[in-house]
Amino acid sequence: MTAEIISIGDELLIGQVINTNQAYIARRLNETGVTVAAMTTVGDDMDAIVAAFRTALSRCDVVTVTGGLGPTHDDITRSAVCSFFGTDLVEDADALKNVERLFQGWNLPVTKVNREQALVPRGCTVIPNSNGTAPGYFFERDGKVFIVMPGVPFEMKGMMDQTVVPYFIAKEPGQAVVHRTLRTTGIGESMLAEHLGEITEIIPPAEQVTLAFLPSPTGVRLRLSAVAKDRATAESRIAAVEARIRAKAEKFIYGVDDDELEAVVGEMLRKAKLKLAVAESCTGGLILDRLTDVPGSSDYLERGFIVYSNESKLQELGVPQDLLAKHGAVSEEVARAMAYGARRATGTDIALSTTGIAGPAGATPGKPVGLVFVGYADKAGSLALKFNFGLDRRRTKERAAQAALELLRRKLLKL
Amino acid sequence: MTAEIISIGDELLIGQVINTNQAYIARRLNETGVTVAAMTTVGDDMDAIVAAFRTALSRCDVVTVTGGLGPTHDDITRSAVCSFFGTDLVEDADALKNVERLFQGWNLPVTKVNREQALVPRGCTVIPNSNGTAPGYFFERDGKVFIVMPGVPFEMKGMMDQTVVPYFIAKEPGQAVVHRTLRTTGIGESMLAEHLGEITEIIPPAEQVTLAFLPSPTGVRLRLSAVAKDRATAESRIAAVEARIRAKAEKFIYGVDDDELEAVVGEMLRKAKLKLAVAESCTGGLILDRLTDVPGSSDYLERGFIVYSNESKLQELGVPQDLLAKHGAVSEEVARAMAYGARRATGTDIALSTTGIAGPAGATPGKPVGLVFVGYADKAGSLALKFNFGLDRRRTKERAAQAALELLRRKLLKL
Repeated sequence: MTAEIISIGDELLIGQVINTNQAYIARRLNETGVTVAAMTTVGDDMDAIVAAFRTALSRCDVVTVTGGLGPTHDDITRSAVCSFFGTDLVEDADALKNVERLFQGWNLPVTKVNREQALVPRGCTVIPNSNGTAPGYFFERDGKVFIVMPGVPFEMKGMMDQTVVPYFIAKEPGQAVVHRTLRTTGIGESMLAEHLGEITEIIPPAEQVTLAFLPSPTGVRLRLSAVAKDRATAESRIAAVEARIRAKAEKFIYGVDDDELEAVVGEMLRKAKLKLAVAESCTGGLILDRLTDVPGSSDYLERGFIVYSNESKLQELGVPQDLLAKHGAVSEEVARAMAYGARRATGTDIALSTTGIAGPAGATPGKPVGLVFVGYADKAGSLALKFNFGLDRRRTKERAAQAALELLRRKLLKL
Repeated sequence: MTAEIISIGDELLIGQVINTNQAYIARRLNETGVTVAAMTTVGDDMDAIVAAFRTALSRCDVVTVTGGLGPTHDDITRSAVCSFFGTDLVEDADALKNVERLFQGWNLPVTKVNREQALVPRGCTVIPNSNGTAPGYFFERDGKVFIVMPGVPFEMKGMMDQTVVPYFIAKEPGQAVVHRTLRTTGIGESMLAEHLGEITEIIPPAEQVTLAFLPSPTGVRLRLSAVAKDRATAESRIAAVEARIRAKAEKFIYGVDDDELEAVVGEMLRKAKLKLAVAESCTGGLILDRLTDVPGSSDYLERGFIVYSNESKLQELGVPQDLLAKHGAVSEEVARAMAYGARRATGTDIALSTTGIAGPAGATPGKPVGLVFVGYADKAGSLALKFNFGLDRRRTKERAAQAALELLRRKLLKL
């Protein structure tokens, strides 16, 4: 089965909001064996919406629609659906109960506008909304499925997970699509391609696996895809290709699929029963924010310091004044002293540090914007790596945080 | 002029990558007076790509295409463009020089694959790439403009800023579109709508301004849009509506357009010559990460502590052991003591703190996952606010960080 994902909203067309819904819906549909063939975005305009419905239903088996189901005047998706399917609105008792339940929880009265959220097109099947007031719904017509959900990501995700994905799993599309992604960092796209060598040696054409390079500022992902009659066949083809890639580039691969580097190193710390401290200057909290995104990170993350000023580097970490004066705060020596000091101040096994010039101001002769030192200390000693991440402030923070976590990974693996 | 934005890439259709390019291109085109009418995403498939080109050129004056220009085998956009326009490839001397310059900077030899990046369709105008090897290009045909750029956001943005936007500004579309967004936080969509009252009183139909509510977990944005013959007329209509909205909901509005709350409070701290310290438990560095995204934040951000453990709350902030024992780490008392202690330990004017249960583990009777206390201290004393942000860990961190920054804003404004 093929699907088209339609997003509705002027906020998307003027570029005010980044569309994260399409990726989420695509990924979840893919997992059930539904192949997404196109994604379309139109504004809050009746003609454009109805035209998009028509085109999508003409070329795909499944159409999902998100956006424009809210309580305010600019939300016209429901009217467009009624117009397209030639139906009218009826109140859904369960949806109304859900609205009343939510407003009771918020200690607010249910207004007329709120109650109208429980109106759905006649003849549809309602998709309950456990995270908000507007129900979703779907129509089955001539073997095709037309699904409407709110545009609020949190609400849409609840509906996908609880209703839409189970619905397609039950339908069994009869074809298995398997994707696997190998996540690398610390190496660029071209260099990685040279490491891998000829694509046909890694993937003999008979194996029917495709490989895509997906570069980002913090690493290159290698996506392997296989389509087969059944899941086991697709998986075994991908496993064979993965083994050949790993033989050539193992040390750059920190994880697969959704593995985040902060979770990978966190699990390594947990298993080794090691405690970590982090002292951030130029990354300003980003390393710690990433580490604490991982549930249970309090088991190995002991403490963090954000030390922008020289004074704080001295007071919190004991970085010697004369070291700061002689080499400057952005130097290999200070990065090492920060990691050493963070480890000593907290009594942890390992400490990471960053110091750099995130910009746009702060450059000095010989120290350009983007210069970053990443430090590491354990009981065996300390070291620091030097990088130049360029002119973009946020990008420099992101690349420096990634480099620090990757340094930790390689030290833990003794690479 | 109307535009369609086409994105190419299997990684988008399987939902592996969130499409940020469409929003960026849309926003920049909009600023030049080009109205985006549709966005389309297709995979790395020759037929689908060419069909998308045909549809887009049939209904819009401007078509932008991103993705599939890289050096690897899965990049087929260039072939699709040649096939569609019936042309072949020629080497562009400037593009080749750019490839050579970049590889020299990286101290790498230029391979055959790299050199092929300098091939462009015959008859196009090249768009230089200051951030990468693949050049962009555009065609002008029958009054329409067809633009091709790489999918790497950093490279595409450089081309939009340096070439595409100046090109459309020079064309003068003869119609002005003005958007203005009022950013609110600390109030939900329905409550905000009730504060504003009847839309027709805020926007008399004669003023031809549209208002959209854009909710997100950290606040609701109100987007005003006006189309007029000239910019001044559109701007004055929007200004009149904005004044009426502010009269009803001023205190919830922390900024306009791209203003981020961390930059707004940062500017307030700088003007008032106040220094800030932050002690984060459940937000784990996110507040500090946001504050340090603002260039020059070192002027007012003195120091930060990430204090997950009870021991660190005691050692770094002097939170009394008996307070932790009596009320638990997640309590109003400890949030206040953390802010008080952070201010005292650093000698700053103001300190913020967070303590909560981000989940999924850690709930206790009476203290559910999502419970967060946000603390504040200045020379007049300390206070803490209680929130319940629900079950999603990342969302709770984001909402707690926003609540802490908003508390700071309201205290600084004495609201």
